[in-house]
Amino acid sequence: MEREFIDWLKQQTHTAAKIGVGDDAAVLAGWADAGIVLTTDAIAEGTHFDLAQHSLNQVGRKAMAVNLSDIAAMGAIPVAALLTLMLPKGFSLDEAQQIFQGCQQLSSDFDCEIVGGDTNSWHGPLVISVTVIGCESCIDGVAKTWTMGGAQPGDVIVVSGSFGGSIDGHHLNFQPQVKLARYLIETYTIHAATDASDSLSLDLQAMATASHVGIELDAGKIPLSETALQKYSADEALSHALTDGEDFELILAIPQTEWDRLKSDPQVASQLSLIGRFIHAGAGFQLCYPDGRTVEYQPSGYSH
Amino acid sequence: MEREFIDWLKQQTHTAAKIGVGDDAAVLAGWADAGIVLTTDAIAEGTHFDLAQHSLNQVGRKAMAVNLSDIAAMGAIPVAALLTLMLPKGFSLDEAQQIFQGCQQLSSDFDCEIVGGDTNSWHGPLVISVTVIGCESCIDGVAKTWTMGGAQPGDVIVVSGSFGGSIDGHHLNFQPQVKLARYLIETYTIHAATDASDSLSLDLQAMATASHVGIELDAGKIPLSETALQKYSADEALSHALTDGEDFELILAIPQTEWDRLKSDPQVASQLSLIGRFIHAGAGFQLCYPDGRTVEYQPSGYSH
Repeated sequence: MEREFIDWLKQQTHTAAKIGVGDDAAVLAGWADAGIVLTTDAIAEGTHFDLAQHSLNQVGRKAMAVNLSDIAAMGAIPVAALLTLMLPKGFSLDEAQQIFQGCQQLSSDFDCEIVGGDTNSWHGPLVISVTVIGCESCIDGVAKTWTMGGAQPGDVIVVSGSFGGSIDGHHLNFQPQVKLARYLIETYTIHAATDASDSLSLDLQAMATASHVGIELDAGKIPLSETALQKYSADEALSHALTDGEDFELILAIPQTEWDRLKSDPQVASQLSLIGRFIHAGAGFQLCYPDGRTVEYQPSGYSH
Repeated sequence: MEREFIDWLKQQTHTAAKIGVGDDAAVLAGWADAGIVLTTDAIAEGTHFDLAQHSLNQVGRKAMAVNLSDIAAMGAIPVAALLTLMLPKGFSLDEAQQIFQGCQQLSSDFDCEIVGGDTNSWHGPLVISVTVIGCESCIDGVAKTWTMGGAQPGDVIVVSGSFGGSIDGHHLNFQPQVKLARYLIETYTIHAATDASDSLSLDLQAMATASHVGIELDAGKIPLSETALQKYSADEALSHALTDGEDFELILAIPQTEWDRLKSDPQVASQLSLIGRFIHAGAGFQLCYPDGRTVEYQPSGYSH
């Protein structure tokens, strides 16, 4: 079955790569000024998805989406991907193809081509591992990448989208914020970025730790997903927004003056929300409620 | 445990990368003339190794080695690697570190740095997935890569090392032929190459199919591993050499005139053996015995 699947793969990938699927490795043309960006994430049955509830096309899409979200969090441009499958014994060619198609349908939206990978049958559950290679964005001939480590006290905390809806389906159908990130890195000065994968509070904490700053988060300003608001009380929805994993939205550290310019940009302002600010490191993680209460917050989320 | 492991990883990787382990993605400096070479291979407990017999350091090394062997088969230069681990629940930090160290000890021999990856705990068996990124070799300013598809009728079939010893340990301790391949691509014209991973006969057949040529293989000239010769009769050893997976030696298609030059090169001649020639496609796969018998051979090996 693996051999048939690889033969089928060769026909699916009309490659811009110099050498694509089927040889010992794929070869892409090099690029001069921009650095090469590499990310990899694996998702597994029983941990990241449940085949009783989710289709193979959906989980293939998710495996690609989580990697594209990491590329977006770097402000980078996806170029090519590798797909590694550990298929449970007895999986059919058609089932393997559904996974590939879920991956490819999404990656092709970003001109990110699947150029290779590895396919194995085994006695364990389904594992889908994707590697995405991208390039840095080049602005006026200068290569730029966002890291988690550049936030400064005084920067505002800005997020894309809304939070708390991941377990009600968003983790399967989210749009990785590649296009928004690329527009932002090309147009604005942004000090640091990450994507909310473990949870808004944990990933914000990771940014603060990497940047040696503290956090002042305005609980009332966190955009809550419609599904969370319909399903839960306002307090519960806030808790889900802070602690659920897999929202895959951008978390950005933006200088105040730059935010003043950005917040009236008709192209993207409606996709972004200011939810707080980075402050001096000694402050830790402060959560500020609309009634004026401020509490020291203990971040939590997807447990590693 | 995953978080502790990632913290430890950050200290292990003294990175030449612009951004290494710990951010959303790794960033490497780009390169201008040479294309980017990408390969990925996963190995899994029960399929590719057995933890009752093999140490974690050995299986980590193997996961890296099989990928470096693919880079060698392209005549490329390894640059950086990503390591993805699916760790069985209950794995300790020390156990994860042993896998990493097995990977790193080998990759550092080739100046190939582990710059990122993904670590998950789960309820399934151990899976180790490695991606290696490399660059094409540049000869007089021209980027060159070997593929499986360039063999021509009349080219001699040349292999590195010996065959048939994989299951007696070679699959765990083999040296990926990166240095030999680099020397050869820089010094000689070689029409096609691959590495013997599924088996000498299957991978030779894959080259012939990709190149639209036939095969005439001299059974008496195939270098047999010492362990196979000690353990088996001569006939059995030949059968193991032709059909066992995971020898990870180079299989090369070389023009006769170039082989005449190469076979007296003191730097590499002793590592190479001429074992046959590619002929017209209609001939299929002919196995020629020393007594003059020639049989149509049905290749077999590691079954996908």
